[in-house]
Amino acid sequence: MIREAAAALAGYVVRTPLLNSPVLDRALGLRLYVKAENLQTTGSFKLRGALNKVLSLAPEARAKGVITFSAGNHGQAVAAAAKFVGCSATIILPETAPQVKVEGCRWWGAKTVFYSPDAEDRRVVAQRIIDAEGLTLVHPFDDHLVMAGQGTTGLEIAEQLQQLAVRPDAALVNCSGGGLASGVLTAMRETYPDLKFYLTEIAGFEKWERSLRSRQPEQSKPVARTVMDGINGPNVGTKPLAVMLLQEGVGTFAVNDDLALRAVRAAFDHLKLVLEPAGAACLAALVAHREVFRGQTVVLVASGGNVDRVVFSQALALPSEYLS
Amino acid sequence: MIREAAAALAGYVVRTPLLNSPVLDRALGLRLYVKAENLQTTGSFKLRGALNKVLSLAPEARAKGVITFSAGNHGQAVAAAAKFVGCSATIILPETAPQVKVEGCRWWGAKTVFYSPDAEDRRVVAQRIIDAEGLTLVHPFDDHLVMAGQGTTGLEIAEQLQQLAVRPDAALVNCSGGGLASGVLTAMRETYPDLKFYLTEIAGFEKWERSLRSRQPEQSKPVARTVMDGINGPNVGTKPLAVMLLQEGVGTFAVNDDLALRAVRAAFDHLKLVLEPAGAACLAALVAHREVFRGQTVVLVASGGNVDRVVFSQALALPSEYLS
Repeated sequence: MIREAAAALAGYVVRTPLLNSPVLDRALGLRLYVKAENLQTTGSFKLRGALNKVLSLAPEARAKGVITFSAGNHGQAVAAAAKFVGCSATIILPETAPQVKVEGCRWWGAKTVFYSPDAEDRRVVAQRIIDAEGLTLVHPFDDHLVMAGQGTTGLEIAEQLQQLAVRPDAALVNCSGGGLASGVLTAMRETYPDLKFYLTEIAGFEKWERSLRSRQPEQSKPVARTVMDGINGPNVGTKPLAVMLLQEGVGTFAVNDDLALRAVRAAFDHLKLVLEPAGAACLAALVAHREVFRGQTVVLVASGGNVDRVVFSQALALPSEYLS
Repeated sequence: MIREAAAALAGYVVRTPLLNSPVLDRALGLRLYVKAENLQTTGSFKLRGALNKVLSLAPEARAKGVITFSAGNHGQAVAAAAKFVGCSATIILPETAPQVKVEGCRWWGAKTVFYSPDAEDRRVVAQRIIDAEGLTLVHPFDDHLVMAGQGTTGLEIAEQLQQLAVRPDAALVNCSGGGLASGVLTAMRETYPDLKFYLTEIAGFEKWERSLRSRQPEQSKPVARTVMDGINGPNVGTKPLAVMLLQEGVGTFAVNDDLALRAVRAAFDHLKLVLEPAGAACLAALVAHREVFRGQTVVLVASGGNVDRVVFSQALALPSEYLS
């Protein structure tokens, strides 16, 4: 399915570069490759999954349109995917979503509907509109077509590493619902069966660590305030978890806002990339746990770059010994 | 020579992506492709030229080492190129050079030599060391091997546009000594003979506009204070000018600091790239002169990303209607 997705997406998505920083390598004592999905159209990997789903729809379904609930990046991606294919999109957003993400959805011509995350379940809000209007849900992660599209990131990484004649020891991916992680894991383990694989989630909110242990989807109440809004969803995807449980040895890390902002700063200084904190979480985990990876070749997915300038300024204001 | 440079550099330099922003396209009323050379190793296109020169040296010359004068991106590029090839590098820096740039050169293992910019000419200082130690000068721009290496940027752009089946109407490049501009012009006009081509320089310091008119290298006194330090050199390259005069219709734009900072902000918001103001100057020119390019397909080289966080913060602090 991931290979089929890659064929479907060719010409629509950016083949994002796999970047290295000699300065980060020496500072961390390892060899690092960063897949810059912040450079993807709409500013995150989410376009890959949304577009693969929308492209798969029959003409009648396309004519009625699509809907999704999302903290932002997936919403923008669905809006863009619908625009590319020529169908309508409805995006359900929390009232607390950053303005840059709300405007992003509207810019692509999507309709936006807000809900109160404290009072309502976004899935219930979506289902009500689906029942009334016959729209197709483009789930942010719990859908095999979305997972396969997101997994094309991993297929590209494997191809790019092979072009460089480099064999990775470990990969780190930011994780909330699990669509990206399950897709990248599947795509990369086909080429590198012994690859160590780590999910990164928000500290104090370790739904994946608990789910991988209990082997069932554990929920969490989202962290009340975090700059990592992109990975602050409450749910572990059932289908992504099932894919992850097919594989041995998936590890987890958890990082807090301070570590994520340091990673945003490191990407600014040494990779010249604009990352959002949730998109830099796995880099933060690598920095914090560098001793685990000493001397190894590590690849990570910098998954998004949709960051408010106020948050980015916090990263710029950090003192210069932020990597120590 | 550019094709030979591309073959020599393969495996050493990053094939930087050619990026598009639907938001910028709509805001500017044109189709824009941005060659992201800020993602090049050392944070600018300068590595291409420096490395092509160093790789061309005979074993005896390599054994003696290389030297350059440059407080900035070219100095770091020469230091990195020497490191890759395994020879020594000496970088001549003004006593007033910021510590971060001195450390950047030393990080790559280069020897640093300081001179007093009020009392000495950097070229004289370099020649004295060359005479004494037999080092090879890697000139920042006035050297055909450096120009050819820098021109590989244009070769990649032409290949990437052909892969996208896109034909450009115009190209804009940041310009100081002229190495990048002359190389990109030569490489791109071979594929696109009718391409309109524009240099961007600092307003109040139009050495290229005057040199193209008089058909001889005109000097300028650098602007006393500018955030575009990367294109604030006093000299037009004799060899780059000669290459440029072989071609018809090379135009020029000039931008001030305010416009350059707006372009840095646009790249942050819509391309997710960290650019230095000198690396965003041609984007600034495009924004300011968008009506010239209405409905056209335009490519530009975002040439570097080595920006001080205080300067970058100025771009983030601009009010949000900065594109209007």
